[in-house]
Order: sequence, then C-alpha cells, then structure tokens
Amino acid sequence: MTVHDWRRESPLAAYSQYLPFPIDAPLVTLGEGWTPLVRSQRIGPRLGIPNLWFKLEQTNPTGSYKDRFAAGQVSLLQARGQTTCMATSSGNTGSALAAYCARARIRCTVFLVEDAPRGKLSQMLAYGAALFRVRGFGASVESSARAIATLADVSVSQGITLVISAYAHCPEGMEGVKTIAYEIADRLAGPPEDVFVPVGGGGLCTAVARGFADLARAADASQSVPRVHAVQPVGNDTIVTPWRDGRDQARPVESRTRISGLAVPTDIDASRALAAIRTTGGSGVLVDDSLVWEVQRDLARHEGIYVEPAGAVSVAGLWRAVGEERFQAAGPVVCVLTGHGFKDPAAVERMTASEAVPLIDAGEIGAAVGSS
Amino acid sequence: MTVHDWRRESPLAAYSQYLPFPIDAPLVTLGEGWTPLVRSQRIGPRLGIPNLWFKLEQTNPTGSYKDRFAAGQVSLLQARGQTTCMATSSGNTGSALAAYCARARIRCTVFLVEDAPRGKLSQMLAYGAALFRVRGFGASVESSARAIATLADVSVSQGITLVISAYAHCPEGMEGVKTIAYEIADRLAGPPEDVFVPVGGGGLCTAVARGFADLARAADASQSVPRVHAVQPVGNDTIVTPWRDGRDQARPVESRTRISGLAVPTDIDASRALAAIRTTGGSGVLVDDSLVWEVQRDLARHEGIYVEPAGAVSVAGLWRAVGEERFQAAGPVVCVLTGHGFKDPAAVERMTASEAVPLIDAGEIGAAVGSS
Repeated sequence: MTVHDWRRESPLAAYSQYLPFPIDAPLVTLGEGWTPLVRSQRIGPRLGIPNLWFKLEQTNPTGSYKDRFAAGQVSLLQARGQTTCMATSSGNTGSALAAYCARARIRCTVFLVEDAPRGKLSQMLAYGAALFRVRGFGASVESSARAIATLADVSVSQGITLVISAYAHCPEGMEGVKTIAYEIADRLAGPPEDVFVPVGGGGLCTAVARGFADLARAADASQSVPRVHAVQPVGNDTIVTPWRDGRDQARPVESRTRISGLAVPTDIDASRALAAIRTTGGSGVLVDDSLVWEVQRDLARHEGIYVEPAGAVSVAGLWRAVGEERFQAAGPVVCVLTGHGFKDPAAVERMTASEAVPLIDAGEIGAAVGSS
Repeated sequence: MTVHDWRRESPLAAYSQYLPFPIDAPLVTLGEGWTPLVRSQRIGPRLGIPNLWFKLEQTNPTGSYKDRFAAGQVSLLQARGQTTCMATSSGNTGSALAAYCARARIRCTVFLVEDAPRGKLSQMLAYGAALFRVRGFGASVESSARAIATLADVSVSQGITLVISAYAHCPEGMEGVKTIAYEIADRLAGPPEDVFVPVGGGGLCTAVARGFADLARAADASQSVPRVHAVQPVGNDTIVTPWRDGRDQARPVESRTRISGLAVPTDIDASRALAAIRTTGGSGVLVDDSLVWEVQRDLARHEGIYVEPAGAVSVAGLWRAVGEERFQAAGPVVCVLTGHGFKDPAAVERMTASEAVPLIDAGEIGAAVGSS
C-alpha cells in the first residue's frame, strides 16, 4: 500500500477480520473513522504525562464516534433487506443513524423523550428522519419503561429493527466501535499503556476494551492490552463505586449530571464496561461537572480542540486521577474525545459568555493589538 | 507503507515536495486533511453523472477546509518565531486560525465587521482569540477600506503578520489548500475529469487548480489536469460574467447573496480564479441562493451529508450546469464541499422549520412507525 490508500476503505472494511459486517455487500459509508490522533501540547506536560494523545472522534462525518456504530448497523440492515428502522435517542446516535439511513434509503423513525429540546433535533430532521415525542417518556421510570416495552413489542410485531447503540440491544453494530482501538494501535505502532474513555451507557468503554483484546489475541497474546479507565460524572456513578467496592454489577442511580449524553441511570452496557476495566487492570474515575466544563475550555484554549462537554470527560478523568496521585505513566496514554463542540452550542455560549467583543474605532486598532 | 500510515502525517508534510512549509521544524497540526471522498448515491444518478464524488472538507478539525490554510500559515508563523498575529474574518478562517494559534501559543487578534453576529463568534472565542469589532467596518466601502488600510499599517509598524486567507495576502499559507487536489488524485488513482468549487474570494478555486497543475508537472505533463468549474451565487458574480465575456479581470459587484462566506464583492483572488478556470478549460456557473438551500437539503436527505449553505454551492453549480444542458461527463466528477452544517445553525433551522415533531402516547407508537 502507498500513501494513496489512507481512506480507500472504511475502517469497518479495513479491519474486517475482527468484525461481523458483510464483506460481499457494499458498506454504507460516509467516510467514518480514520480520525486524527494528535499529541497533547500543554495538558499532558502540565500533568506530568509526557506522552499523551487525543483521539478526535468529533471529526467523524456527523460529529461523533456514533458514526462507527451507525455505519455498521445500517450496513447490516441494508444487507438484510430492511427498508425501515426505529430508534430512541435525542442525541448523537439519532443524528448518526439518521444520516446513514438517509444514505441507504432506509426510513428512520426516532422516538424521543417528551421534553426533548427542539434545538437538539435539527441535525436529525435535516437528514429526513421522522421524529415523535412520546408522552411520559423520560418523565418517570415507570412511563419510560412502558415506552421502551412498547417499542420492543412494535419492533417484534412489525418486524422492524429497534436500533439502540448498546451491546445489550445491537451487539453487531457496536462492533464497529472497536475500530477506535485498532486505529490507535496502528497509529502508535502498538497499543498504548492506558486509555481513558467516558462512560454513559457503557458501550464505548466495552467496545474499546474488546478491540484491544482482539489485537492481543491476533498477536497470540504476545501483545499486552492497555489499561482501560472508565470516567463518569459524579452524578451518574453506575460503575465507579461498584468498581471500588469490588462488585461485578453496575448499580442503578438517580442521575444528576448535567453532562448531556452521559446521564444513563440504568445498566445497559454498564456491567460490561465494569468487567472491561477490571479485566484490563484499569480503573474507574469520578469527575464533577464543573471540572468537565473547565477541561472543555482548556482543550479549546490550550490545545485548539473543540468538543462538547461529554467529549472532554476522558481528559477530566485523567486530570482527576493524576491529581489524586494514583496515576502516572511514562508510556503512551490516549484519551478518547467523543463529540464535537458544535453539538452543544449552549455549553459553548456559557463558556464564552464572559468574553467581551469591544467595539473600537479604526484608529484604536494598533492599541488593541498591543493590549490583547 | 501499510494501512497504519493513513494519518501519521499531515498532508502538508506528506506532500511537502509541492509545498513551502518547513520540513525541519514541526508542523502545527490538528489532524487536518485526509478528508473523505465519498461517492454520490442519488444526486449523481439523478443528474446523469454516474461517477460523482463529494470531497467532505467539513470533517476537518474546526469544520472547514480553512484548516489546511491555518495549519500552513501558523506553522510558518511558528517557524519564524512570531508570537502574535492579527486577522480579519467573521467566519471559518477566524475559527481555523484561532484553533491553530491556540495550539502554537500564538496570540490571535481578530478584527470583525461592526455588526458581526455574536453567535458566529463563539467558536473563535472558545479557542481564546481576542476579538474586536471595528466601527464602520463592513458598513461602507470607504470605512471598510480605511479599516483594512489601518490594519495593514499596524501590521507593518508593529511587525505583526496580518493573516487573510487569500493568495493576495498570504500566498504561502494558501499553498496548504492545494492538498485537496493531491488527496483527490491519490484517492481516485488519477485526476478526475471535472472539479466544481465555490468561489467567494477565489482562493480555494485557485489553490485546487494549482494543486492539479503541480501533479501534471510532476508527471512530466503526461497527466491531464481536470477542468475546474467556479460556482458563484448570482448575487456575487465577480467572475462568471467576465468569464462568459472573455475578460481576464474579475469585476467588483454590489453583493446581494445571502450565502454566508461567499459575499466577497471585491477582487481578492477572483482574477486568479478566473485565470484558473480558463487555463483548465473549465467554466463559470451562477446559482440562485434558493437553489443552494434546496441542494443543501437534498445533500442531507438523500446523501446523508450535512453542510452549511456555502458547502452546497459546488453541487448546486453542477446541478445548474447539467440543467442548462451544457455539461455532461462519463468520467469522475468531484464537488468540493467546504463547511459543516453546524457552522450555520440558522440555515438548518430554516430548512427544518416545517418539520413537525408530534407528541404521541406510547400506545400510538405502532401506528407512528407505520405512517412515517
């Protein structure tokens, strides 16, 4: 291969030996994956982590790592002749699915919580997805459970796949997310020592750990797996306390975090993620929402990297683990950044609200350059 | 090389033989470039263009092709020991520069038109750029000219580089944009027959044409160059009418287009772009703003591709050229898409405003799936 071949194929095709996607049918692809792995300029040195890297998943086509799931899942739907699917998501999964379904001419109907803010839905609507808000969905545990049960019933009775980005629901599609691990290992010419990932439902953490395990198996286990560290907001601690307590099962919580996308109070893939951090010798880390926002700001101002709050959680976790003096590393450490800064404009508005944009006369330009 | 090498280097390093950037100093990079080239699923077949490709420049780190310019320009500033720069932009260039300057610890001061909308500035502010609005800048030709003249004076007197993404001002940095052409030719294993690009100032069109010319020269001119087609909104026709009239110089206009980023009424690089389309045997195409919005919508709904209005202009141009029965092609045709759908949320709101998101009861889910 030559430099020509960087993007000739989706990583879902390039790494097909580890993946369940059809190789005799065309993949539904928008150029997902092959995201940059860039070296930290300032945060790493400041934390005493000399070899820190950021995996920029926000540069995927729809702005988040969910494109790796959607590419896999929608390719499977297409290969199986499905012309419609149904889903629940008010965020990045919904946008990713809507985009890949548009490309594959598959009708995509997304069911949302009752109070889903309109602004979060524009991207899904742009791709032509049909959206419905469901009364009571998201309002209480009981009405939410009823909505999910109804969705599952309809899925079975009408023979329409219910797509949820979790191993618990769509294990084959989730395998597409493992490509994050393959790309990191290829880019660094070997696995890193430590990987930090955010945990909401737990699917990303599970997939990344499984991806590195695939590589170790393929190398006859002569290759080590990195320690996988799961980072959660304090207000959604489904696995960190269970990890500290030596338990094997995630616990349900009353979610209080304001980090959009990571408020997942029940055990979807969380026990799988807990198993992953234990198997790899990793850890669980809790972070305050305020630290996440601070790190989101630092990533933009000191690294030039623009992510939504959830996208900064892995770095906040590293920061916290170093601060607690229970983490240091000389080898490569990778933080997975998940979603674009554009995804949550309100968070950026809050971050920049105190910045003045003065109105000056042309004659004041020289002084302005000197003072800024 | 193996599949490992896809992103080991920025395209500004990978194609250094054609570029003026320092190869003995580190590049300032955020993983720009290597953007997807994806094949059209529906628009191409519908237009009778069987081999149509979209170059997805919106997946660059800050959301537009300007990252290729900023990576080059800021790398040069860093290599020359500059610790500050000044710029004018209220859009994608400002965000790209702010990001790369943040990474390089270069102070970036951006001077904006007086009525720059706050919402467009959030991304620049997030990266820590200092912003000033200049009284009268943008309000009239005279006061704008005075502001630009003052900026140029301050640049000289204080020894601070004035960064504007145009060959007229920063020809070295603009060379980074040529990498779009190299990537397209590598991905297709040869140059396409036709390339459609939007023209505002004209720099992108100029750079793409020069990039393909570099490749033809390197191949001892045994390789052809693609025809480069320049697409402009009817309301900013600086080069299309001059092209039709056989002139060599762009003309100034009173800009009336509402396509953000393409309202550039003066000849910055426009005469260079005019020369490029003439040299390559390309053409000029005018499109109505309303067609641009329609194509923006079609790209999202039928291809799964989410761009701002300016990002859809090249495709609108192809559409128009086919409709006028003066364009057909059996060989590869590439449309360059420039900026992310996230960049202009107001345009997306307009596009999706008529889409209802009904509130239903859980019991109505089955009927909703059937009807949508």
